[in-house]
Amino acid sequence: MSDLIDRIRLIRSPSIGPVTYRQLIARFGSAEMALAAIPDLARRGGGKIPALFSRDQAEREIATVEKFGARYLVLGQGLYPALLAELDDAPPILIAKGDFNLLDKPKVSIVGARNASAAACRFARGLAHDLGQQGLVVVSGLARGIDSAAHDGALESGTIGVVAGGIDVFYPPENEARQKAMFERGLVLAEMPPGTEPRARHFPYRNRIIAGIGFGTIVVEAAPRSGSLITARLAAEAGREVMAIPGSPLDPRAQGCNQLIREGATLVQNAADVVEAIEPSRPRVASPKSPYELSPPEMDGEALDAVEALLGPSPVPVDEIIRLSGAPSGAVQMALLELDLAGRLDRHAGNKVSLRSI
Amino acid sequence: MSDLIDRIRLIRSPSIGPVTYRQLIARFGSAEMALAAIPDLARRGGGKIPALFSRDQAEREIATVEKFGARYLVLGQGLYPALLAELDDAPPILIAKGDFNLLDKPKVSIVGARNASAAACRFARGLAHDLGQQGLVVVSGLARGIDSAAHDGALESGTIGVVAGGIDVFYPPENEARQKAMFERGLVLAEMPPGTEPRARHFPYRNRIIAGIGFGTIVVEAAPRSGSLITARLAAEAGREVMAIPGSPLDPRAQGCNQLIREGATLVQNAADVVEAIEPSRPRVASPKSPYELSPPEMDGEALDAVEALLGPSPVPVDEIIRLSGAPSGAVQMALLELDLAGRLDRHAGNKVSLRSI
Repeated sequence: MSDLIDRIRLIRSPSIGPVTYRQLIARFGSAEMALAAIPDLARRGGGKIPALFSRDQAEREIATVEKFGARYLVLGQGLYPALLAELDDAPPILIAKGDFNLLDKPKVSIVGARNASAAACRFARGLAHDLGQQGLVVVSGLARGIDSAAHDGALESGTIGVVAGGIDVFYPPENEARQKAMFERGLVLAEMPPGTEPRARHFPYRNRIIAGIGFGTIVVEAAPRSGSLITARLAAEAGREVMAIPGSPLDPRAQGCNQLIREGATLVQNAADVVEAIEPSRPRVASPKSPYELSPPEMDGEALDAVEALLGPSPVPVDEIIRLSGAPSGAVQMALLELDLAGRLDRHAGNKVSLRSI
Repeated sequence: MSDLIDRIRLIRSPSIGPVTYRQLIARFGSAEMALAAIPDLARRGGGKIPALFSRDQAEREIATVEKFGARYLVLGQGLYPALLAELDDAPPILIAKGDFNLLDKPKVSIVGARNASAAACRFARGLAHDLGQQGLVVVSGLARGIDSAAHDGALESGTIGVVAGGIDVFYPPENEARQKAMFERGLVLAEMPPGTEPRARHFPYRNRIIAGIGFGTIVVEAAPRSGSLITARLAAEAGREVMAIPGSPLDPRAQGCNQLIREGATLVQNAADVVEAIEPSRPRVASPKSPYELSPPEMDGEALDAVEALLGPSPVPVDEIIRLSGAPSGAVQMALLELDLAGRLDRHAGNKVSLRSI
């Protein structure tokens, strides 16, 4: 319990995202030790000491979660979804309410447009139902349109909804009944603390969970440059199967899926196609490697200066920083961690970083 | 002229298909020499001497073709389409009427269902038009539905129709005006002699020409197990690009194309996608190798017995016969040729052969 409090304090503290969290735990062995080390690290990074999330705040959050009938899933422990733990930026903690048996079962995600056609929604619902008959748990984002249809189709067999805000926030409002039904007969997951109203920036975080939790992601009717396509890209980056439902070139709503197929996604038309596509992944056992594995950093005062000199306002891949600095990877990671904790670093998609303009 | 007469006599003689024709020319150097050798070969194969197509019959055919305003294209000579000549079973002669300038231009084929939806026909017509704007000649089969739409869309820019029957036969009858328009402003090709009414067995021959004449084949709305899918398979076997227009899984007419894409065909939505798909092939120059190249056979009386012993009523790949016989490839080919000319061999798709039950 004390460890859970420390973990909550760590991830809810400013400047600490999932990647930094993971590096801190890897470096210091526990959330407690990481919290103790932060002031010194931030000082070395040349910034102010961040105001940490307090023990009191963490205890209040835990009380709220318990009162709501939800519980925590901790990365690397117990019921935490094994495939999700493989992500570099896996959520350190998740809040879950519903049927925990679903966490152990093979999962596949269905995503798509909020304003999808009635035909596509009906299709998604039928597909979700058929996937359930194949023993697959259907994961989606509890949004309007395709998400809702997918949850409905799989409610009997098993479905997991990942929300962008808090577990106790119903968004969109008309999905309150659906989300409550899933508390009873499905499962709902939230990365953000209770009470969080979902904002635009939360949706990509939610999407990486949908993309990373299962064997693959199926896209049904998605506009070009939509969130669904981002989820598909995240799934591909995580090495998961990306599947798409094709449509006529005359149908503008088919553009996104057709483009995905052109880029290498598997064209699927029914549950049998999906099962065939993910079959090679299914026997896969979750990687036994600890999510906190990290090469032991060689502490080196010069590395920090070298890394800082290589950074600017434009995002640069961390790999490039490592290469250009000539320093050991662990030393560069530690220097970035220090800058991060000092509030002087921004982390971007694709493992890129930039110096924050102060 | 005398050589043309001999070539016509050779290919129009019974038991002599394009593969046998090619082997005979390779073995004997000319159609004239091959014709002279046939009686002896057939005797060695243990059959009756075939009744050859007579000089008189060939001269009458030539007169009919000339009167109709058409002309012959001879494999390995002049205007004969270079990519088509690469096929193992390239038509030894073609009869052509129309604009011969189209033969030299880059070509792509469009095929699809005869009973295609109005939307798909409109799409095919627009695609053909746009491909014409990209400098591509559109090839199709002058059938109802997609074929007709493709020809119509490309009539201004350049289109080639390959008919299953004779050049002077209009099938289906309602396409008479279209075929005549293509005599004037496009090009029509026929492998069969003038006056041939197309029968079911002629269509696969026609399809291999459509599949082999250009850089690739685009399938628009095709039923599973349709002729269009056979054309696609032939194109793939010839190493050409196979492209398909996707459709909704809810649309039964999209099944064939979606299946093709699942099997590796490139999903295309417009002319730009087609140009991108065939781009790697376009710089390719026709293979300089003569279509009649064949390793010189080592004549061997025992090979014939060995080959015959290996054959039965079930089709067997020629490669397997060569391997099992232990005889040189050329000797096996010659033994098969002799059996063929003796009317004792059937040739099947995929370079398979069987002994004809007498």
